[in-house]
Amino acid sequence: MHVEAIYHRSTDSYCYAYDDRTVHIRLRAKKGDLRTVKALYGDKYDWDRTAKEKHLHKIASDELFDYWQAELTPPHGRLRYAFELVSGTRKLWYTEQGFTERKPQDPLSCFDFPFLWPSEVLKPPEWVKRAVFYQIFPERFANGDPANDPAGVRPWEQDDPGPHDYYGGDLQGVLDRIDYIQSLGVNAVYFTPLFEARTNHKYDTSDYLRIDPHFGDAKLLKRLVQAFHDRGIRVILDAVFNHSGFWFAPFQDVLEKGEASAYRDWFHIDDYPLTREPRPSYRCFAFESHMPKLNTAHPQVRDYLLDVAQYWVKECDIDGWRLDVANEVDHGFWRQFRRTLKSLKPDLYILGEIWHDAMPWLRGDQFDAVMNYPATEAVLQFFAKGEIDAETFSYQINRLLASYPQQVNEAAFNIVGSHDTPRLLTVAGDERKGMQAALFQFVLPGTPCIYYGDETGMQGGADPDCRRPMVWDPQRQHAQLLDFYRRLVSLRKSHSALQEGSFEWLYARARQLVVRRTHASGHVYVCFNHDAAPAHLVFDVDPHVSPVPVWGNGVVQMVEKEANVTLPPFGWHVLIAVAGSD
Amino acid sequence: MHVEAIYHRSTDSYCYAYDDRTVHIRLRAKKGDLRTVKALYGDKYDWDRTAKEKHLHKIASDELFDYWQAELTPPHGRLRYAFELVSGTRKLWYTEQGFTERKPQDPLSCFDFPFLWPSEVLKPPEWVKRAVFYQIFPERFANGDPANDPAGVRPWEQDDPGPHDYYGGDLQGVLDRIDYIQSLGVNAVYFTPLFEARTNHKYDTSDYLRIDPHFGDAKLLKRLVQAFHDRGIRVILDAVFNHSGFWFAPFQDVLEKGEASAYRDWFHIDDYPLTREPRPSYRCFAFESHMPKLNTAHPQVRDYLLDVAQYWVKECDIDGWRLDVANEVDHGFWRQFRRTLKSLKPDLYILGEIWHDAMPWLRGDQFDAVMNYPATEAVLQFFAKGEIDAETFSYQINRLLASYPQQVNEAAFNIVGSHDTPRLLTVAGDERKGMQAALFQFVLPGTPCIYYGDETGMQGGADPDCRRPMVWDPQRQHAQLLDFYRRLVSLRKSHSALQEGSFEWLYARARQLVVRRTHASGHVYVCFNHDAAPAHLVFDVDPHVSPVPVWGNGVVQMVEKEANVTLPPFGWHVLIAVAGSD
Repeated sequence: MHVEAIYHRSTDSYCYAYDDRTVHIRLRAKKGDLRTVKALYGDKYDWDRTAKEKHLHKIASDELFDYWQAELTPPHGRLRYAFELVSGTRKLWYTEQGFTERKPQDPLSCFDFPFLWPSEVLKPPEWVKRAVFYQIFPERFANGDPANDPAGVRPWEQDDPGPHDYYGGDLQGVLDRIDYIQSLGVNAVYFTPLFEARTNHKYDTSDYLRIDPHFGDAKLLKRLVQAFHDRGIRVILDAVFNHSGFWFAPFQDVLEKGEASAYRDWFHIDDYPLTREPRPSYRCFAFESHMPKLNTAHPQVRDYLLDVAQYWVKECDIDGWRLDVANEVDHGFWRQFRRTLKSLKPDLYILGEIWHDAMPWLRGDQFDAVMNYPATEAVLQFFAKGEIDAETFSYQINRLLASYPQQVNEAAFNIVGSHDTPRLLTVAGDERKGMQAALFQFVLPGTPCIYYGDETGMQGGADPDCRRPMVWDPQRQHAQLLDFYRRLVSLRKSHSALQEGSFEWLYARARQLVVRRTHASGHVYVCFNHDAAPAHLVFDVDPHVSPVPVWGNGVVQMVEKEANVTLPPFGWHVLIAVAGSD
Repeated sequence: MHVEAIYHRSTDSYCYAYDDRTVHIRLRAKKGDLRTVKALYGDKYDWDRTAKEKHLHKIASDELFDYWQAELTPPHGRLRYAFELVSGTRKLWYTEQGFTERKPQDPLSCFDFPFLWPSEVLKPPEWVKRAVFYQIFPERFANGDPANDPAGVRPWEQDDPGPHDYYGGDLQGVLDRIDYIQSLGVNAVYFTPLFEARTNHKYDTSDYLRIDPHFGDAKLLKRLVQAFHDRGIRVILDAVFNHSGFWFAPFQDVLEKGEASAYRDWFHIDDYPLTREPRPSYRCFAFESHMPKLNTAHPQVRDYLLDVAQYWVKECDIDGWRLDVANEVDHGFWRQFRRTLKSLKPDLYILGEIWHDAMPWLRGDQFDAVMNYPATEAVLQFFAKGEIDAETFSYQINRLLASYPQQVNEAAFNIVGSHDTPRLLTVAGDERKGMQAALFQFVLPGTPCIYYGDETGMQGGADPDCRRPMVWDPQRQHAQLLDFYRRLVSLRKSHSALQEGSFEWLYARARQLVVRRTHASGHVYVCFNHDAAPAHLVFDVDPHVSPVPVWGNGVVQMVEKEANVTLPPFGWHVLIAVAGSD
């Protein structure tokens, strides 16, 4: 037994409450090493009468490790537990005190989950896993009101945006195009920042309580949110609370009055008077002098930003906040943010922008989810760039899934690109590859988000090229791709298995993949051939519920309980099994 | 290289801010596997210009693993980092994305500590590491006022307490004996609960705002704390907030009015009317029906208990709270507790009773420290019970030290027994072993606490036997042991190395140990022979600062920079090296 490879600690992804009654415990072990893993568990105050055993099951594997899990329901909310490990013919027990040859008798030596408080369980809003998002970068989506255009807007058709260009997109434009958005089938929209700022991306807020006049006003936003809600579409906005803009009045006050300013502690000032060159004498987002970092640990700043966050919920009834540069803001602020906002609107979605391992923000006291950039990276490496094989891809996704509590995965914000990355089609260089990537995105646990224009075949390299004006001319839109996206959204929304089913790999070798989502209502099988040659895939299906091919470009034959799928180059096929249909 | 044994995650004991400028990163690896470990680190927004390298050093080893650490000071508070690992002739880099043969070029693949917020760094009060505590169980320490005795108190000399007996100890008794306490040299006192309750141990509070009338009153406590403060002795009290007592007025209200009670949500009621048998129809501490569990997630309960906690700080100027059954209370309550109490008294010591891995409470937002029962267990196994050898003992301590941030270890509440465990001398069965255990307790990082009477040689098995009345009769006190404890306290207090020096094992084999605490002001070496035969120990000392034997029963010879120490059975010796004394 490779005991050094075994890892468990009674916290984070290794031990957490999944719901008000259930605790998940996980164990990491060297791949292939353990034959069985059992949990020995009970109530610490009545061990002898309550101690039970339960097998852990393997939830995922990567290059190095297997991840095992058991779902336990401690009757009194208190859980002591140890693991019984079997490798070959060797059996060991694993407790908080290490490995032992003898079954632990003293529950004090065991691992401990002291008490399950329902109030501390991370419960992302139920609607999130059933949502399909659409991301809108407002300056580039549609110009509905030329009267509010900034000076010198470029013609909409010029698709080579510079970093400081304006095109005149606004909220009226979104409202004008709301039927189009609805026609995609999406039921949620994410707007990058709408508040007054001096850039086209608006990540340098000058007034948090005012809609940027080039976009419209609060009344219009309210109408727009109402119009979305009337269509069953939720709306989340972008909260840029890590930093303000240079022209934010409190920062201007510090610039003007220096140390005498009442706002001096709202920021992180190294030296007075404030200077911008060669490097700012105040902390910034990165080293961007037009984005001074806010001191979110300061009570006045907290009160101000929490007022802002509540204001837009109350005023416009928005359904969530996406939090910019969320991991550089202090945890204490986010805890207060969650308490305040969730008490205002319990099913508000709190989504952090974190590109790295985000476990410390996903313990139930801060965010519901994060933008799932590590999954984006893996999806692009396999589907768009062809840099890794199917097995490696499955390992990357599995490692990620195993690193978070299950409810975090179920609410993950899954993207294949955003305003901060090159566009999917440009990276993939082949629409078939792009379609595969999007299909996988919609099959992965979490909530998928389409970046505006990806569905019409828009291209674009790194920022600012990925922020081209939306293509509205039907002649320039990719009709087949648009149809693909509409069917994709429809597929996702019509199958509970894709929203909340368990996820597993049936096949991941060379350049072929078969994944399954399993739910009480039925299963969804999705097959991918990410190869320039055709491929023939054979895999077993659940003998109780026979799947039917519903969508794709393959040829599917069911032989007994075996699926035979022939896929063209970069082809794919979706099979659906509805429970009770046999 | 044994890559499966390597562990790192950017959180908890593996990556934390130690102070306002310094981040510690740690890496776990298979024991003996890695020759060198280097950190490659820099600022994520200016990687190429800021990237540097620094060696990690091995801070500890146990049976299976080496633990490596580096102390880094990111200039802009933002830290990206990767590890360069060398095993034999093989070199690998380790990033958040796994192991790679090539030096990582893209900082996005690295581990991330996004921003160091000084407000979020765990900073236990400075005084704690310089403190020596004395624990008092008030009902058994001294009876200063027979007028407040409960009915039927037993004579003080009868040393066989039953679970429900009273002896009449009280606050006046402590005040009367304050010169004795001061004479021990201790500079902090921990009282088990003082508030009104129906048991002798008072862990079943009926009135949180009233001193138990058998103990005295608030005025007397105030005088007592003042008297301690006048002698430079701090005072911490016991907060029993997980549960109340059966006779707590709100619980009585629920008993009386059932579902109609305004206090029904203050507790966890399964069924009405409330029943006690066979099992309570309400949640309790364990299954103790006289200790109904409080719903500390309820805002009214929170406000009430926070008022209580603040009241005694304001009223009597106490210096800390020890939190009973702390891990079964919700984290949200403790966060609010810390914010509230630290803003009232910034150097208040917040000490949790947790017998297990307590990492989730020690992230800076809840406790300063926990009662270090895992260390107690290891110390007793080696020094009192002789169940493990010196090497295993060192591994257990090392594993524990490596599992927490350094400042947690520096503020750990180190005990060799308490009102909840058999007494040290009874477990050890030999005063020489007891003395060794106490000496080690005082050498370990953290703050040591003497359980009342251990210093006079008191015996006692499991609760209630460990709660015998304090022995005051000089004839029955162990004079030599008392003298030992006084010197031990004095030693600890007079050497910064013992309070805040680094800790290392110079020797740990068979039944012999040599440990060293190192500090700028000098080193302390402590040698132990835990064997029934004499032992001869030879070890190298720091060539720059030569140690002098100061205390013990060994024979010490310095030969060049080598110490030769001969120790009798169960003997020990302390050597001190004062910096600049050579």
